[in-house]
Amino acid sequence: MDEHFFNSSDGVRSGSPLKYLRRVTFEEPLELTMGGELPGVTVAFETYGRLNAARDNAVLICHAISGDSHVARHDASDDPGWWDLAVGPGKPIDTIRNFVICPNVLGGCRGTTGPGSICPKTGRPYGRDFPVITTEDMVEVQRRLLDHLGIEKLLAVVGGSAGGHQVLVWATKLSHRVRGVIPIATSARLTSQALAFDIIGRNAILRDPNFREGQYYDKEPPEAGLAIARMLGHITYLSPKAMDEKFEMDRYHPREIQTVFEKKFSVGSYLAYQGQKFVERFDANSYTALSMAMDLFDLGADRPKLIAAVAGSSCRWLVISFSSDWLFPPKGSRELVDALIASDKKVSYCNVESDCGHDAFLLPDDLERYGALTRAFLSNLNGRRPPVLPEAGREDHHPTSIFHGARLDYGRILELIPFDASVLDLGCGNGALLGRLKERGHKRILGLELDEQAIVACVRRGVDCIHADMNRGLENFGDGQFDVVVLSRTLQAVKDVEGLLEDILRVGRQCILSFPNFGYHKLRKMLMEQGRAPESPGVLQYKWYNTPNRRFFTVSDFEAFCEDRNIHIHRIIGLDTEAGFEVVDHPNLGADLAVFVISR
Amino acid sequence: MDEHFFNSSDGVRSGSPLKYLRRVTFEEPLELTMGGELPGVTVAFETYGRLNAARDNAVLICHAISGDSHVARHDASDDPGWWDLAVGPGKPIDTIRNFVICPNVLGGCRGTTGPGSICPKTGRPYGRDFPVITTEDMVEVQRRLLDHLGIEKLLAVVGGSAGGHQVLVWATKLSHRVRGVIPIATSARLTSQALAFDIIGRNAILRDPNFREGQYYDKEPPEAGLAIARMLGHITYLSPKAMDEKFEMDRYHPREIQTVFEKKFSVGSYLAYQGQKFVERFDANSYTALSMAMDLFDLGADRPKLIAAVAGSSCRWLVISFSSDWLFPPKGSRELVDALIASDKKVSYCNVESDCGHDAFLLPDDLERYGALTRAFLSNLNGRRPPVLPEAGREDHHPTSIFHGARLDYGRILELIPFDASVLDLGCGNGALLGRLKERGHKRILGLELDEQAIVACVRRGVDCIHADMNRGLENFGDGQFDVVVLSRTLQAVKDVEGLLEDILRVGRQCILSFPNFGYHKLRKMLMEQGRAPESPGVLQYKWYNTPNRRFFTVSDFEAFCEDRNIHIHRIIGLDTEAGFEVVDHPNLGADLAVFVISR
Repeated sequence: MDEHFFNSSDGVRSGSPLKYLRRVTFEEPLELTMGGELPGVTVAFETYGRLNAARDNAVLICHAISGDSHVARHDASDDPGWWDLAVGPGKPIDTIRNFVICPNVLGGCRGTTGPGSICPKTGRPYGRDFPVITTEDMVEVQRRLLDHLGIEKLLAVVGGSAGGHQVLVWATKLSHRVRGVIPIATSARLTSQALAFDIIGRNAILRDPNFREGQYYDKEPPEAGLAIARMLGHITYLSPKAMDEKFEMDRYHPREIQTVFEKKFSVGSYLAYQGQKFVERFDANSYTALSMAMDLFDLGADRPKLIAAVAGSSCRWLVISFSSDWLFPPKGSRELVDALIASDKKVSYCNVESDCGHDAFLLPDDLERYGALTRAFLSNLNGRRPPVLPEAGREDHHPTSIFHGARLDYGRILELIPFDASVLDLGCGNGALLGRLKERGHKRILGLELDEQAIVACVRRGVDCIHADMNRGLENFGDGQFDVVVLSRTLQAVKDVEGLLEDILRVGRQCILSFPNFGYHKLRKMLMEQGRAPESPGVLQYKWYNTPNRRFFTVSDFEAFCEDRNIHIHRIIGLDTEAGFEVVDHPNLGADLAVFVISR
Repeated sequence: MDEHFFNSSDGVRSGSPLKYLRRVTFEEPLELTMGGELPGVTVAFETYGRLNAARDNAVLICHAISGDSHVARHDASDDPGWWDLAVGPGKPIDTIRNFVICPNVLGGCRGTTGPGSICPKTGRPYGRDFPVITTEDMVEVQRRLLDHLGIEKLLAVVGGSAGGHQVLVWATKLSHRVRGVIPIATSARLTSQALAFDIIGRNAILRDPNFREGQYYDKEPPEAGLAIARMLGHITYLSPKAMDEKFEMDRYHPREIQTVFEKKFSVGSYLAYQGQKFVERFDANSYTALSMAMDLFDLGADRPKLIAAVAGSSCRWLVISFSSDWLFPPKGSRELVDALIASDKKVSYCNVESDCGHDAFLLPDDLERYGALTRAFLSNLNGRRPPVLPEAGREDHHPTSIFHGARLDYGRILELIPFDASVLDLGCGNGALLGRLKERGHKRILGLELDEQAIVACVRRGVDCIHADMNRGLENFGDGQFDVVVLSRTLQAVKDVEGLLEDILRVGRQCILSFPNFGYHKLRKMLMEQGRAPESPGVLQYKWYNTPNRRFFTVSDFEAFCEDRNIHIHRIIGLDTEAGFEVVDHPNLGADLAVFVISR
């Protein structure tokens, strides 16, 4: 119980053996983005696995505000690392296949140059004389480390939270040196709310009388202020639901700990414990420096600025957010993804449904999704396909997929797509159609999908897929951005038919869609003669009370719909999927499934 | 611009003339719920309007943690009050009709006994010797004040946030002394997250070296700690969206203020300003005492405990929450409402859709809803009907209401409901059916509705209505809790038909439902002969692409559905709403609308 209670998700060791810690010092002065310079920098880092002969299997991991270089244990006797879940032999970031590098950030207090380091000029710790640093400065130090290690191009850069900010700098400013990036639980800049929490944390430190303008290294440090800042951080890392689950049962039964803080409630003793534990291992000046770097990080506040920020990026992206993360809300990740989509970048995105809040990426609960995505993405960067798992082979995975049930329209749609056309597949399921197109050599293909397992399957195929609900519109896609937009067996389940079709015809130069035809003769007879809601063993196989379909219309209805709106109909293909043939005459009567090719 | 920026929603005056402030001292010792006693208490309060001859028009307003007795301005020359929006002549809480009383709470620092008051024993301020007080103690002091004023029964008690806690004590422990209560933006107990914020605020105060164990009255007070607690509070009062709107535009342009706190970002200067302004008018000991009272408030953690807590309540309830309030999330209000529903209490509930967060009840943005609800509820308590506004007269207000379009089923449903039956109307619209039942003398009637304006109309009629989506189920209603459940012209728009019907047949001893019949002869012909999706000028008047309906079924389909599930069909009434008559033979062919009476 107490082990769970005090199980810190920040995962930083308190006293790991230092035998694996490496340090390198660069004498060259470091010019800082906010002005000023550091006369030189030392970087502490750890590595895992071996750099291969081609020197192309290196993965850089960037840690968050309170992390350090000890991302994983090096052997069974080693202290736990802060991301043992994801990094190690056979883990999503597989140290058998990859050479993993994790440096402590600039400004930190775990071996890399920071405010606690000795300033060569004065011979005493920098303290508040440590200049303002930015995430860009941290990445510059990482770049020097890579040069030192002789790594010209990274396989990937991975990191969450403030580590995600570093990933974003790599992806936007140094993308020629990396094949793929995985920014997790992060965003182009903090929300005002997140900024406000950081400011209050810094005020608590700066107003602590022991802070003494940052020159406290030979005195009592500002522990109360740092502990309060840390307590505040801990609230923001947890979702409200996770907090309730952790503390509601024994609300009035705090753990008995020695503390100078209030310990009336269970959650109070947790915060007191976390605050006190933190001050033992972290430097208040580092905390304010790193928190300010987070606050200053800003790729752009709006869509045009974000599009400009990602314009030069040449790497592949996998963006992961967590539904209950309120410190870095999914909206921020989605805005970044939208800018990447608008710029035709190679990007996949998944907003993992999670109860764990911002901490989700450090916890086992959702590893099945974020871990599988990470593994699949890295494997494809390697150019070595991951093993096809059973569910990836099931082509009828997604209920509204065209591969569900009868498959007659499948080949027809493939035939209708011009060779090398760029294709957006709405409701792409596990990416079977896009996978075929990829094999056929199509360069620009993208799927939209709502089901997380299906997204994992897409990423495993090396097919880019965006986690999104098409019912919320395609507003973030540009006009004519794709040659073909595919909407297969989905229109009948769409809420805003007019809005979606308008979007599709704007985004795609051509649209291929298939839908069940309610005018099929068997269905007509069922209503006419039996007075019963039409259903058939084929496309309309559901009962009236449990069908996911909400639109019942015929080939003629859709023709009329297009005519009313001056939508150009290029082709109408009627299919009788039960009988297994194409219906040439009277598709409205003879086809149970129709394929339309339309455009504006 | 600056006026908006610094427009504090806490709304407490800084130096109002005191000519309206009254004080009364009760010599009798006050026994405290957590043990100990106060030798006597002084209450500061203000009143507005006049107590009528029947002494039945008094409304008690309870303020939140940082408020005071100055709820509204007394005249044009007076300082603004913290709730001028809602309280005053012609306002929702109308001081022409009502006698309004607003006391400063026990433990406060604005005239009522608190930690800054002189302890008679020691002759110096209580400081930390001030005993732990609870919300119950605050209400006990309010009760003494009412006795003193000669008010046996209040018309209503109204309050938000911590003021809402006081309202809940009145409603559960002293409900014989109040006709109706309006708890706003509150809950039966704080979430773990809210508790954690309070704890951090108190830690900031208690760890401030100037706090000196609370005995700082003749010294420098713990201003830094109190300011930090207040900054934290301000974040929790605003929604993330409201914060972005307030601070994103000029993120890097802080206001130029004199401050000892960080002022790098716009939001930082706001927090610094709010923190500094607060310490000028508030006492840190009061803040910790009142925040602890909030944290200790606990009507019960789970449904059985909440049901027990409200068991003895005899007053009417109007519960209001705000969708973006994350300090007191709507879920908490809803749990309270569910317990009241389960206990057959008279309760209405509205979760006002708002972007303003917890502060919404103090801001003008959503006044149209929460103010209208408050006004309507109070008017009905008065026994004087509010003027019927135009929209309340439109009986076809709600699109899925039975009063939409043809009205033939309206009278039939009324006829089918036994006299004096208890009735739950799902999707009750503006309450027209329930209003008729009320006039017919039905005692226990309740509506469920999703549309806020319709809920306002219900409350205006004096008909209780719960803001809820029936698609999320009726799990909080008891078995057989109503004689009749009505579901009129709604089943065709329901997602989970089986689940909802199961719930309805569990909660209602009988269920009366009406739905459009897809087997109607004109619709059959349209599909059969024209090959087009059926539509008609009557019930199925929408087009296939814009209908809110998602279930298309016939009288025969529904009969079969019931038979398969052993649902007892008592009556089937077929209506031809176009022709305007009842269809006796072959309703599946001749009726465009069917009414079923069913039960388990």
